[in-house]
Amino acid sequence: MDLFVFGALLVGGMAAGISGMLFQPGDWYKALRKPTWTPAPIVFPIVWTTLYVLMALAGSWVAGRPGADAALALMAAQLAVNVLWTPLFFGLHRVRIGLGVIGLLWLLVLTMIIVFWRIDWLSGLILVPYILWLTLAAALNFMVVRLNPFIVPIDPSQLRVGESGGR
Amino acid sequence: MDLFVFGALLVGGMAAGISGMLFQPGDWYKALRKPTWTPAPIVFPIVWTTLYVLMALAGSWVAGRPGADAALALMAAQLAVNVLWTPLFFGLHRVRIGLGVIGLLWLLVLTMIIVFWRIDWLSGLILVPYILWLTLAAALNFMVVRLNPFIVPIDPSQLRVGESGGR
Repeated sequence: MDLFVFGALLVGGMAAGISGMLFQPGDWYKALRKPTWTPAPIVFPIVWTTLYVLMALAGSWVAGRPGADAALALMAAQLAVNVLWTPLFFGLHRVRIGLGVIGLLWLLVLTMIIVFWRIDWLSGLILVPYILWLTLAAALNFMVVRLNPFIVPIDPSQLRVGESGGR
Repeated sequence: MDLFVFGALLVGGMAAGISGMLFQPGDWYKALRKPTWTPAPIVFPIVWTTLYVLMALAGSWVAGRPGADAALALMAAQLAVNVLWTPLFFGLHRVRIGLGVIGLLWLLVLTMIIVFWRIDWLSGLILVPYILWLTLAAALNFMVVRLNPFIVPIDPSQLRVGESGGR
């Protein structure tokens, strides 16, 4: 286990976590029509925190082995796309673009798991919960798009200085 | 040059680019008081695109060399933090948290450049424009905070379904 790689990837996961903390689902999300199998809001931060730790762990396990460069480059790509999704969905209410982004993320993570698995199967295995959760999240995003055809995206650039988008 | 690493890191840079495209500076940013040395808006996308390509290039050059794992893990961390800044600043108008995030980003990138330089000095060198630009961006963020004490952050969760933050 490479502690430096673990720490660095944890910082990356933290960035995604901060994104989730600042772009909270609030009244907007509550008012959306959602499928019956939608997890309770409290579940999301717990699951995501666990997943970010597992990603950092997997990265630290493959570090130093042949092929780790490709694995960590994929880690960088998927982490960046992961951070992007939350502001698009909860920040701009751009649920359709969000669906495209989560689709790309799913493909990146699938590729990443295959690359990790080939280097060290255990590192690949601890990333499986991530893609399972992403599958659920993508399905939820899809259902939000289907069930709520009238979502208007936010244009934050149109708000003035000293004018809040909230109440 | 590792083409797979190059491509993967380019996807990561693309995520940051999309973030910049969707969270555009508009009337809000225009109305802010900014220092005289603020670059014209058109400069930003050109510079950032160049920087993301340079990052991917640097990563693809160190790939396969001893120490590349630490370098690429730092790349993952800084890319994730980079994607986070734009939605915070332009999306939520959270210019103070943005300043903290860009400070963290600056430190990560400095560390990354040192790690890259030790592996292959040319890879480190092509990342120097990135930290110079970040220094300017951080100074600009700092001046926006100082010159505009009355910025009200947006709370996107308080907007309703079908209600836009714009006009």
